[in-house]
Amino acid sequence: MPMSGALLTDHYELTMLEAALGSGAAHRRAVFEVFARHLPHGRRYGVVAGTGRVLDAIEGFRFGAAELDFLRRGRVVDERTLEFLASYRFSGDVHGYGEGECYFPGSPIMVVDGTFAEAVLLETVVLSILNHDSAVASAASRMVRAAGERPIIEMGSRRTHEGAAVAAARAAYLAGFASTSNLMAGSLYGVPTAGTAAHAFTLLHDSEHDAFQAQLDFLGTGTTLLVDTYDVAKAVRTAVELAGPSLGAVRIDSGDLAASAHEVRRLLDGLGATGTRVVVTGDLDEYAIAALGAAPVDGYGVGTSVVTGSGAPTASMVYKLVAREDAAGTLQPVAKQSVGKPSKGGRKTAFRELEDGVAAGELVTTVPGCATPAGTRPLLRPLVRGGVVVGREPLDEARERHLASVAELPKDAHHLSAGDAAIPTVFT
Amino acid sequence: MPMSGALLTDHYELTMLEAALGSGAAHRRAVFEVFARHLPHGRRYGVVAGTGRVLDAIEGFRFGAAELDFLRRGRVVDERTLEFLASYRFSGDVHGYGEGECYFPGSPIMVVDGTFAEAVLLETVVLSILNHDSAVASAASRMVRAAGERPIIEMGSRRTHEGAAVAAARAAYLAGFASTSNLMAGSLYGVPTAGTAAHAFTLLHDSEHDAFQAQLDFLGTGTTLLVDTYDVAKAVRTAVELAGPSLGAVRIDSGDLAASAHEVRRLLDGLGATGTRVVVTGDLDEYAIAALGAAPVDGYGVGTSVVTGSGAPTASMVYKLVAREDAAGTLQPVAKQSVGKPSKGGRKTAFRELEDGVAAGELVTTVPGCATPAGTRPLLRPLVRGGVVVGREPLDEARERHLASVAELPKDAHHLSAGDAAIPTVFT
Repeated sequence: MPMSGALLTDHYELTMLEAALGSGAAHRRAVFEVFARHLPHGRRYGVVAGTGRVLDAIEGFRFGAAELDFLRRGRVVDERTLEFLASYRFSGDVHGYGEGECYFPGSPIMVVDGTFAEAVLLETVVLSILNHDSAVASAASRMVRAAGERPIIEMGSRRTHEGAAVAAARAAYLAGFASTSNLMAGSLYGVPTAGTAAHAFTLLHDSEHDAFQAQLDFLGTGTTLLVDTYDVAKAVRTAVELAGPSLGAVRIDSGDLAASAHEVRRLLDGLGATGTRVVVTGDLDEYAIAALGAAPVDGYGVGTSVVTGSGAPTASMVYKLVAREDAAGTLQPVAKQSVGKPSKGGRKTAFRELEDGVAAGELVTTVPGCATPAGTRPLLRPLVRGGVVVGREPLDEARERHLASVAELPKDAHHLSAGDAAIPTVFT
Repeated sequence: MPMSGALLTDHYELTMLEAALGSGAAHRRAVFEVFARHLPHGRRYGVVAGTGRVLDAIEGFRFGAAELDFLRRGRVVDERTLEFLASYRFSGDVHGYGEGECYFPGSPIMVVDGTFAEAVLLETVVLSILNHDSAVASAASRMVRAAGERPIIEMGSRRTHEGAAVAAARAAYLAGFASTSNLMAGSLYGVPTAGTAAHAFTLLHDSEHDAFQAQLDFLGTGTTLLVDTYDVAKAVRTAVELAGPSLGAVRIDSGDLAASAHEVRRLLDGLGATGTRVVVTGDLDEYAIAALGAAPVDGYGVGTSVVTGSGAPTASMVYKLVAREDAAGTLQPVAKQSVGKPSKGGRKTAFRELEDGVAAGELVTTVPGCATPAGTRPLLRPLVRGGVVVGREPLDEARERHLASVAELPKDAHHLSAGDAAIPTVFT
């Protein structure tokens, strides 16, 4: 039996639902907010990603026969709860930061407003998506800044879960990567895909000469030849000898990439292949990319570090109840009060404060219906209204939004060194 | 149109296939091996996980109409290649370490033997699965050792990609975790699921008293009450007052967990609830678990750190061509030869050397058909024969294999401090 995404959920969401259906509180209106208490260590900004995938998940969140059967057989919840789940549809409202927007500690990245029963069930899948995708996009954005005008190919699929790989390719693209190696990301999300050959292709043939010849014959002279299987200098000479000066690119995947890039550039130029590009890959992260800034490199391929968030594989976002109706039907702010894991009660709205077009602060207010203050732009946009998705957009819009949002940040937001959030979050 | 997993693949696997079909080398017999050049920094051993999922992926690796249509429209490969893909079935052999087995640098974790065309296409999905699942299992195993007899619940779904969460729950379970919060892992893999309530449930009700009462009424007195929403001591008193001494457990999720556990244990005992267990959660990793060893804790819940591999979110495994037929049809060892990224050519077999039942070395040999040397046990088992999966097994077998494999390691394998691999890898 095919499964929907409704079991991508923590057991306790369902037991809470069961007990709340029992107490009657399940039908109280409730507002949950997604936010991060802090950025990963030393990061200056985070990037919201996954919003589009969250909308898909909410729309597809249904308990069908297969799911209900599992829950019944496992005695996860009682019959009353199963009945509720059988007709479950999220019928509330969701607002959120636009996908690609920069965020800061305490930014109310997503606001889910419904009954407790409807909204609590979405916690796990909403967080899974936003935490993963935002972690990747946040790392990717730093790499894109470090690379300047040079394009980066995302090629980390093999270093992360096969499904996460697809989402990672999407997140890296919206943060500014040029393309991905992941074909499913091309198919599902329209991310441009790229790739030519690995060492195995060269080793498969009886000589590097034969391998290059085969690649040129069947993929064309515009292809990228991998030149570090045996001897780099010899490979470059073979490559130009076979392809002529119209060879698209050569790729170096090991050794001292900066030294190799200089050597290969000199060789190529000496052989008249002045238009042949030099692409480097191999355990690159934002620091290695920045360090290669002065090397004659035309493009980067990045794998492990981007799909694992470059040291921060999760964005540490949480989904917290910030307001709910009391017995009298009045919406009341709520928050955990004991030591540790601070949060602020009350439904929030947020604005980015701008001074001469430069971001100066993140204004977060609990004032209901607050108009956009002068000198700010609003950050929350409607995503779901009365259960209907209204915020879906092409991935390229998120990509453009990110470009605009990051361009607006103060200059020190782009320092790779560890530091504080680029702008302060001000709660009012 | 529904998709198979065949596009969970890097673009270059298909362009290599295209060029190799052109050169004719595509049909050469080829042996690829999965291994890790090193363990994550300071780790003493790794744990193979994902094998069962790899078998599912190989079985389901088919290019249907949807996949072919995408590849044609995107001009990823030519018509000859599309034709090959349309009838693609892996018809070769796969051997591999048993799932749950410990591994070391250079261990030939999986050996894929087929034509180049058939075997190269599996690279990305095989590595995605093994790299992710092994990273999680390797971290989980250390946590299980640190926890001793105390059970650990995996509850990190919200901190990782929603699909990765399911695989992570599976991997943590086979490495010794007692249960998971992830319902899909329960449904797909039979991992026991667990969970009761979050702070939101307490905050939803008009008082902690009302929330606890509702939870006890509908989930029974055997439930776990979360006691750190307001004041821990007050919550414990309320809990025992309402549930009596048969209360199953209380959970502490913030603050100084050791101090809190002592305080809560004293309170519970003073109230006569001597059988009520104390469960702690909240940013635990293997070090925090070990540090709580002397605290009166009955169980742990672990989230972020296990699903992100506790600092090592990927196992750094690679899939390398180690042998292939030459033009004369003879299988020849091959290996990349330039500086960096070392690998050893030739198809390998591996044995664990034992001295008085304690692992002493990882013997890796390229001698064809090598008999099991005295004082060792063989590590490779058949997984696929002639394209047919023969190595499928229940998840509990992997769990038992891990228990036996880890018990066999020398004592210093269990040190949490950074160190070298617990046993040396010897190549012969």
